[in-house]
Amino acid sequence: MTRPQLFAPASGPEGTSPGSLLGLHRVLEPAGVLPQAARRLDARPEIWPDEVRVRVTRLNLDAASFRQLSEASGGDPDAVRAAVLDIVASRGKMQNPVTGSGGMLTGVVEAAGPGSPLGLAPGDRIATLVSLSLTPLVITDGLARWDGRSEQVPCDGHAILFGRSIAAVLPADLPAELALAVLDVCGAPALTYRVTASSPAGPATGAGPVVAILGAAGKSGSLSAAGARAAGAGTIIGVVPHEAEARLLRAASAAGQSGAGPLVDEVVVADARDPVAVSEAVRRAGGPADVTVVCVDVPGCEGGAILSTAAGGTVIFFSMATSFAAAALGAEGVAADITMLVGNGYVPGHAELALGLIRAQPALRALFDRRLEAEPANAAEPEE
Amino acid sequence: MTRPQLFAPASGPEGTSPGSLLGLHRVLEPAGVLPQAARRLDARPEIWPDEVRVRVTRLNLDAASFRQLSEASGGDPDAVRAAVLDIVASRGKMQNPVTGSGGMLTGVVEAAGPGSPLGLAPGDRIATLVSLSLTPLVITDGLARWDGRSEQVPCDGHAILFGRSIAAVLPADLPAELALAVLDVCGAPALTYRVTASSPAGPATGAGPVVAILGAAGKSGSLSAAGARAAGAGTIIGVVPHEAEARLLRAASAAGQSGAGPLVDEVVVADARDPVAVSEAVRRAGGPADVTVVCVDVPGCEGGAILSTAAGGTVIFFSMATSFAAAALGAEGVAADITMLVGNGYVPGHAELALGLIRAQPALRALFDRRLEAEPANAAEPEE
Repeated sequence: MTRPQLFAPASGPEGTSPGSLLGLHRVLEPAGVLPQAARRLDARPEIWPDEVRVRVTRLNLDAASFRQLSEASGGDPDAVRAAVLDIVASRGKMQNPVTGSGGMLTGVVEAAGPGSPLGLAPGDRIATLVSLSLTPLVITDGLARWDGRSEQVPCDGHAILFGRSIAAVLPADLPAELALAVLDVCGAPALTYRVTASSPAGPATGAGPVVAILGAAGKSGSLSAAGARAAGAGTIIGVVPHEAEARLLRAASAAGQSGAGPLVDEVVVADARDPVAVSEAVRRAGGPADVTVVCVDVPGCEGGAILSTAAGGTVIFFSMATSFAAAALGAEGVAADITMLVGNGYVPGHAELALGLIRAQPALRALFDRRLEAEPANAAEPEE
Repeated sequence: MTRPQLFAPASGPEGTSPGSLLGLHRVLEPAGVLPQAARRLDARPEIWPDEVRVRVTRLNLDAASFRQLSEASGGDPDAVRAAVLDIVASRGKMQNPVTGSGGMLTGVVEAAGPGSPLGLAPGDRIATLVSLSLTPLVITDGLARWDGRSEQVPCDGHAILFGRSIAAVLPADLPAELALAVLDVCGAPALTYRVTASSPAGPATGAGPVVAILGAAGKSGSLSAAGARAAGAGTIIGVVPHEAEARLLRAASAAGQSGAGPLVDEVVVADARDPVAVSEAVRRAGGPADVTVVCVDVPGCEGGAILSTAAGGTVIFFSMATSFAAAALGAEGVAADITMLVGNGYVPGHAELALGLIRAQPALRALFDRRLEAEPANAAEPEE
């Protein structure tokens, strides 16, 4: 239970500032908060002894953040690009001030301090598994190669990893872009696996809990469905917003998985922001759910998730568009005796679990490949 | 697991509109959302067959909401009063548009529809246990008797309860104001009890889990401490922001509880918004905690709660000032393998548990009485 060296001091680049595994020495304002909560970070390239500097090749913006920036810019890609550059220049990190979220990055290790516990060496191609919202970042190419139309942002610059900034070396057997997309959301299948495995079995059949995934054809949603299946879910209900997504998900489920059954058992079309519609759809498909997983990156899905969940069940909120107050007051307001989890992006072994799912299940991988093909401008970027 | 009649239709006052136990028929915009998520509710006094109309005597604003309104008004009480009146007039409910939160109310039942499942009759003095953020409300006295300086708002007007709007008849053996203050936060001790009771015992002593309460001298904090004790907590660490609160809490703890040991075992002074300070203070007092309960109604307490919690432990966020993104990304950012719960205000039996704690534990009650005395302007209101 102890965390050795959690606040261990280290010398700064000039030998004067204290460092720490949490990156507190990089916080410029307000004083004393963690880097994630800071308004502004010190993003200078010189590293403390326990830090790693990465040459950035690509940012992968959080879906909720990108959507907010696009909508606020009226869909003008130049305005979106300018907004990202402005945020990074003024904050020293890519953290959307409205959503609070960031994303992740890929790059190549440029320098590793002698005290870094991450085990990385110069030349390693890595993806960060901590949010951009706490990662010191400088962009040096003006995002000239980004079209402003996709969450995938080709980029040149540098970023800093702290001692506790989890990162994964990109696997050799998967395309970098696929690995990045999987690692970006790897906390979701890991926590879904854990909650499903510890959930009481479904009451009617004794065949494992009923799991409903809102946004089941997306990246985090489809991986979460695979995680739920691996954990012994009974019925998995995939909720998608329209027929095109339903077709994708049905095709992936019909293709099956090696030795694991279909990705989802039922596919239903409903607007996750319409609580009555989504909960009635889940009910008709075999619900209410013992576990409901929210992977829809638009605001207003709290009520639907709550009403779709059986008494004694659990909702896991992964969407960064989730409102804490809407969830807390929404459940209270309908007297719902359910457990609601903040989707913690860190679960030990999360990267390995997610990469294992994508390797083992061709239908899941096909779903990811199809999504990545739908982002042609950036999929063609040579560095990935 | 089934919820009969969840969406059962009922005739409206003019016999034309559909009703429901969730109050969907009162939502004016946007269409289809739950009352809690609505921008505007229909607050007219005519009731549907499954509704109850209450003559309101007092609003109890959510602490985070009142703080935000006061700060936004520069502390001008007239401006605070005008802001509340404006919100209620424009939204048909008292939901702070910034915090999303509301509060609760007390009043007297004026009319109960024949289809209401709440078991209330005209003349019953009640407190609502659902948030004002979903309760149709009309204020008719211009809040003339409120000084704008306290969360307790003497008020005349009417409110509507839906079939699922939990309410409690005020107990005859406790002053109304005390009962209201207890019921306002009764979800916190109930969920703290449940989580503490199911938590693995503390690793060092085998004597029950270590529970840290941020804001332990406040209403929800002190009740949560009592709930943790009742559930078999080992060490309870009370974190308070300054020495005056520490003295209050020490006095309450020294007074002891009937057959239950002190309210808290350790009292530490730390700023809950300073993650390093609060986590080091908790550690020195016997932490890290197996269960950390956040009852501080200011933003920025997520990091301190996360760092104060042991691997495998649980954080319960009760403060409406909690940021979902800050919690999710904060835990991920420091690779904290912890469970984070959205503090659901509804747990079956919550009102009875909280009232039982306040009756059984004179030191806890003394703490509440002292807090209520500190709000003299409204404590003197004749109708309570």
